[in-house]
Amino acid sequence: MSQVNVGLCGLGTVGTGVVKILKDHAEEIKYKVGSEIHIKKILVNDTQKKRDVAIEQEWLTTNPDELVNNSEIDIIIEVMGGIEDTNVLLEQAIRNKKHIVTANKDLMAVHGQKLLRLAKENKCDIFYDASVAGGIPIIRSLTEGLASDKIQKIMGIVNGTTNYILTKMTDEDLAFDPVLKEAQALGFAEADPTSDVDGLDAARKMTLLANLAFKMEIGLEDVEVTGIRTISQEDITFATSLGYTIKLIGIASIHNGKVEVSVEPTLLPKDHPLALVKNEFNAVYVYGEAVGETMFYGPGAGSLPTATAVVSDLMEVVKNVRLGITGNEYITPQYEKQLKQDDEKYMQYFIRMEVDDTAGTFQKITNVFTNEDVSFAKILQLPSEKDQMAEIVMVTHKISKQQLMNSRENLKGLDVVNRIISYYRVDGED
Amino acid sequence: MSQVNVGLCGLGTVGTGVVKILKDHAEEIKYKVGSEIHIKKILVNDTQKKRDVAIEQEWLTTNPDELVNNSEIDIIIEVMGGIEDTNVLLEQAIRNKKHIVTANKDLMAVHGQKLLRLAKENKCDIFYDASVAGGIPIIRSLTEGLASDKIQKIMGIVNGTTNYILTKMTDEDLAFDPVLKEAQALGFAEADPTSDVDGLDAARKMTLLANLAFKMEIGLEDVEVTGIRTISQEDITFATSLGYTIKLIGIASIHNGKVEVSVEPTLLPKDHPLALVKNEFNAVYVYGEAVGETMFYGPGAGSLPTATAVVSDLMEVVKNVRLGITGNEYITPQYEKQLKQDDEKYMQYFIRMEVDDTAGTFQKITNVFTNEDVSFAKILQLPSEKDQMAEIVMVTHKISKQQLMNSRENLKGLDVVNRIISYYRVDGED
Repeated sequence: MSQVNVGLCGLGTVGTGVVKILKDHAEEIKYKVGSEIHIKKILVNDTQKKRDVAIEQEWLTTNPDELVNNSEIDIIIEVMGGIEDTNVLLEQAIRNKKHIVTANKDLMAVHGQKLLRLAKENKCDIFYDASVAGGIPIIRSLTEGLASDKIQKIMGIVNGTTNYILTKMTDEDLAFDPVLKEAQALGFAEADPTSDVDGLDAARKMTLLANLAFKMEIGLEDVEVTGIRTISQEDITFATSLGYTIKLIGIASIHNGKVEVSVEPTLLPKDHPLALVKNEFNAVYVYGEAVGETMFYGPGAGSLPTATAVVSDLMEVVKNVRLGITGNEYITPQYEKQLKQDDEKYMQYFIRMEVDDTAGTFQKITNVFTNEDVSFAKILQLPSEKDQMAEIVMVTHKISKQQLMNSRENLKGLDVVNRIISYYRVDGED
Repeated sequence: MSQVNVGLCGLGTVGTGVVKILKDHAEEIKYKVGSEIHIKKILVNDTQKKRDVAIEQEWLTTNPDELVNNSEIDIIIEVMGGIEDTNVLLEQAIRNKKHIVTANKDLMAVHGQKLLRLAKENKCDIFYDASVAGGIPIIRSLTEGLASDKIQKIMGIVNGTTNYILTKMTDEDLAFDPVLKEAQALGFAEADPTSDVDGLDAARKMTLLANLAFKMEIGLEDVEVTGIRTISQEDITFATSLGYTIKLIGIASIHNGKVEVSVEPTLLPKDHPLALVKNEFNAVYVYGEAVGETMFYGPGAGSLPTATAVVSDLMEVVKNVRLGITGNEYITPQYEKQLKQDDEKYMQYFIRMEVDDTAGTFQKITNVFTNEDVSFAKILQLPSEKDQMAEIVMVTHKISKQQLMNSRENLKGLDVVNRIISYYRVDGED
């Protein structure tokens, strides 16, 4: 394989970037992988459209068969998006022993495990670093680290839209709705923002990371997901006054072989490295048994960062093929899935409630917590805007999720508690 | 090369860690590189000493010839430290066509370029990721990124000792001397702290990074170095009140093919990602033309992180050897060295001076700056502790180093300026 032929599916901004990089850095890439990389075919919708990059007309086709059934093509780069049709196309390519590089996290979240198994059967590689965090080489860092370390916990800010919204809400003291509207106007949020603001996009990425880190087949249905819609300006003000920043944090952790994966608004100490990750930036914090804490920070998306990640993956595939190894052996699950139950999930919590401003209230509340063996790191009581009411914010020490839920139920039963306004996970203090 | 034989020089904490990792992760490593890695010989001072790891007695030797002149050994791992003797040993190994993995930054800073040239002549690899920032895979990230991106600027906190001292000084409002003493007592600083606190250690690492990023042969003598001894509590207080954090920052940047490498105390905006890198942690911030801003954060030293980095390098060498490529082609300089002159180095500066507290003082000072075409982003004037004196702190807009030095000279000539107390670079605001 001293020359490698590539079929490129999609010629949007990422595809165009890939073509440019392969051209501009051809010499360096050849040095690094020991092979020349040639583009053989590009799948497009319109072969006559004017392009921003110099391409040869004979590369262009609207017929996927000319790529996936083309015996001259060794590797398929998929940067066209879509789920079901794209999946069919890639399955066919894999059956034809073609290696895959994709930037398509939606596809990988839905069909990733199946595709990886199929690829393993066919001794093919699937690389998808570009799908998780754009310019951050997190999958490579995890798989390379994995070979000589044990990952214990991953904490990630892996969705740029929600991080942009929370940054604006925090720094400019604004409410969710106007910030979302502004983000939509600026193109940082989509017209239908559901997948971002409800945490689904982040959950898909955390699934991919958890599978890799723990080598278990964890699905989207195993991830507990809460989005950011319900975060209020008051929540942020209270969090700030207690020394925290609210971020949408994905956590994947393992303890005694049992795994927990979740995405939810989380309070981090203001001086935690993830607390300073602002605007549309992403970052992934990894705790390894040997290495300790490391963090990777960078643009979570963008056509150039994504194209760069695609080319890095492509280079890795070329090297693997020449070495006669596949990365797959590492990407496919090796262990039976074991999930933590609620009484095995330990975390600090921030609980905010509206209570009667009368003598004895505090004692009744603390009784509830004491009965559940819950103790506190921080307590803040302030007059409420409502007459005869007060607001209490408590930050617990580490307790199980079960203890939290029991306490919540019992608090609801107290006559002095008007309502539990909000509660959030607190992390990063140990 | 389905089996690779390794000679290990040194069996201290890092060497012991390497042996443990190779043993504990043997299966995974074999999968990742396609070869079994065997330890053949270990160079030690005392073959009878009790060890923390299970080793076979026949591995141990006090004779370096049994490693560097051993035809069965493919790769030498050097984790014993030292410069001149170690250099002789490695040169001999390279002449015998052995690949090198080293964690020895002192050696690499002094003899690195010569060793890399020798290795290139002998078609050997030298990998030294472990030498720069312990657990942070920064060299790999740079070389892999380099193949498909252009690095424009690197900013690094690459010395744990000074970062620990500055963190303590800032967070606990302490002076340099007592913090240094405490750091020495705790083992975070060496008995002779010169190499750390005067910035030499950081300069060595920045040299290695600059060489890689810009492919020029930049030596330690090309790096402008200022340490942290002269930073006072008052400097930190002023910086803090203007919204900055003082860090010892190494910068390597390129503009129009001309390079600047320096290590000096630098003011960063409080919300810059590097500002939150605390205590003994390291971080390297990289600006790439395509990817934009990325940052790698982690432990800068420590035996387990370093051992993990050594094993990662080892795996890379094994892959390269099997691919018939060497990383060297990328590590050896390709361009003629071109350094920026002082009138080509643009930066913001923080200038603090003690002046007469009389009418007209401020006008005389601003005249000096106006004559040099220097304008300001921030100005702060406060009464001095001394009678009839005031302190002025100014933060300039971006000016050349030449402009700064001219202004300084002219300020010294003013009768109203008692003394220029300190001046520091300011970065991270663009």
